[in-house]
Amino acid sequence: MEFRLIERIRERTAQAREDVHLGIGDDAALLAVPAGVELAAALDTLVQGVHFPVGTAAFDLGWKSLAVNLSDLAAMGAQPAWALLALTLPEAMDAATRVAFVDDFADGFAALARPQRLALVGGDTTRGPLAVSVAVHGFVPAGQALTRSGARVGDAVLVSGTLGDAAAGLSLLRGGARASDARAAALVERLARPQPRIAAGLALRGLASACIDVSDGLLADLAHVCAASGVGAEIDVVHLPRSSALLDLFDDAAARDFALAGGDDYELCFTVPEPRMAEAEASLARLGCGATRIGCIVEGAGVRVRDVDGAWLEPARRGWDHFGA
Amino acid sequence: MEFRLIERIRERTAQAREDVHLGIGDDAALLAVPAGVELAAALDTLVQGVHFPVGTAAFDLGWKSLAVNLSDLAAMGAQPAWALLALTLPEAMDAATRVAFVDDFADGFAALARPQRLALVGGDTTRGPLAVSVAVHGFVPAGQALTRSGARVGDAVLVSGTLGDAAAGLSLLRGGARASDARAAALVERLARPQPRIAAGLALRGLASACIDVSDGLLADLAHVCAASGVGAEIDVVHLPRSSALLDLFDDAAARDFALAGGDDYELCFTVPEPRMAEAEASLARLGCGATRIGCIVEGAGVRVRDVDGAWLEPARRGWDHFGA
Repeated sequence: MEFRLIERIRERTAQAREDVHLGIGDDAALLAVPAGVELAAALDTLVQGVHFPVGTAAFDLGWKSLAVNLSDLAAMGAQPAWALLALTLPEAMDAATRVAFVDDFADGFAALARPQRLALVGGDTTRGPLAVSVAVHGFVPAGQALTRSGARVGDAVLVSGTLGDAAAGLSLLRGGARASDARAAALVERLARPQPRIAAGLALRGLASACIDVSDGLLADLAHVCAASGVGAEIDVVHLPRSSALLDLFDDAAARDFALAGGDDYELCFTVPEPRMAEAEASLARLGCGATRIGCIVEGAGVRVRDVDGAWLEPARRGWDHFGA
Repeated sequence: MEFRLIERIRERTAQAREDVHLGIGDDAALLAVPAGVELAAALDTLVQGVHFPVGTAAFDLGWKSLAVNLSDLAAMGAQPAWALLALTLPEAMDAATRVAFVDDFADGFAALARPQRLALVGGDTTRGPLAVSVAVHGFVPAGQALTRSGARVGDAVLVSGTLGDAAAGLSLLRGGARASDARAAALVERLARPQPRIAAGLALRGLASACIDVSDGLLADLAHVCAASGVGAEIDVVHLPRSSALLDLFDDAAARDFALAGGDDYELCFTVPEPRMAEAEASLARLGCGATRIGCIVEGAGVRVRDVDGAWLEPARRGWDHFGA
């Protein structure tokens, strides 16, 4: 059974790459890393009931399990190359359901992998509570990776795209959103099929002083940058980029809290020396996602948030515990 | 919480390597692959109740989750370098239990990693049903990897060490083995803390024509080699290497079946051209694990087993479904 499922996944995710000397089907993949690059490697797990709700479509799970990992590569400014997949499927799933699930999962994985020319090179399938682990590998020219530790006092803090949409989508799902509303569908889509900001990460090499992806929520993730860089940050609620769908369907306070503490957006939060800020904004505007200055790096530690009335805000939640929080 | 657990794991598994440019603590690790080598990469998951019984000691789980992956590198003839770890812990575990579990897990992982100079460079911790995914990376000189596809008609088939011990250990666990019996303890130890045959895999580079690790049982794994190589194999029960503990505690038929179809031994099964067989045997004898010729590669397909009486055997089980089978 396991072998047959792996064959199905292999066929549906096929991607020829000259640097894959041996792919799925042996004890390990054999891969060639180009000279002059560093290998960026990350591994993330999604567990049913924790990172995605029961009943999530297999296609979306395939997409998302790769997306959250590619987002880690994006945050490093790395070009994706290869992935390994460990898929755990419930024993109670009957054979036909299992095959259909694996096909849809592989199609969702491939839909995101193919435009990146990412090759699935190995992994395993096993029985157990539904969960997915994906390891991704990418390349970055030696010494040019974006890290969390390079933010300096006076740097601008920016984010790509818009914040809070995925958390709003989850809120709608829990409340029983109507698919007929295009704005609600757009928010749920952000949760189900996040777009890792690969191109933005590549464009920010040599521009951003630090970078992280917003998976746990802006406040939590920017706090990681501050801790790693030994600095503090001040951001302004009034500058938080929020989609019209979010602002249409939620009141100001809810939209603000989603943007500050909601996770799963997989936008990039990054710092740029002020003199290069316009360049970074223009670069991400050309890519379509855009970038918005939301604050600046200051001396000290931690993230302070200035509300629309100019007062410092104490947010109700600082972190995001994904689905099931 | 997650951050604190990761810090504990980092401290307990610390291993300095110059090729780790950035380890645990950013969105991805940054790694340098030496020139002239291929990167061997594998990812395996262990799920509670499937790959290990409820109540498995955290130290043993840390050890085994790395061991099964290192065994994949061993089967390729690769030198281990780095690992990524995704650890899923039940929400119901209270904070003190969680910390103790993570400490013991990390100690077990490190006990195996340290002698290999393997560095843990990233991963994540999450909530959910107890499970562990480990991705491992190793180096092999370009073109020298051992694969499953190189077996040729006339090659000898060998295995390292002894077969069937882990399955016998599992059988004893299920029957309530007495820890006071040293032979029983030795068999259970094979199940709990398998020894990946890293040194044997390295020694077999340039000697073995094909190689696989025995994780699913000899018959199943040798069948993979046959399928990948387009050949058949004939093996003799009389030659199967079995430990004195196994032969003391089980009758002939049980010992035979454990050796043929029991998994989790993590020995290497490999093929060698006849003229180089003595060299392979001597090499693995020097390493302490030894190697035993159990049969040969023939034309055709599939694995045939000759019983002690010379008749072809139809084994009751060909595969191994790990714990919970």
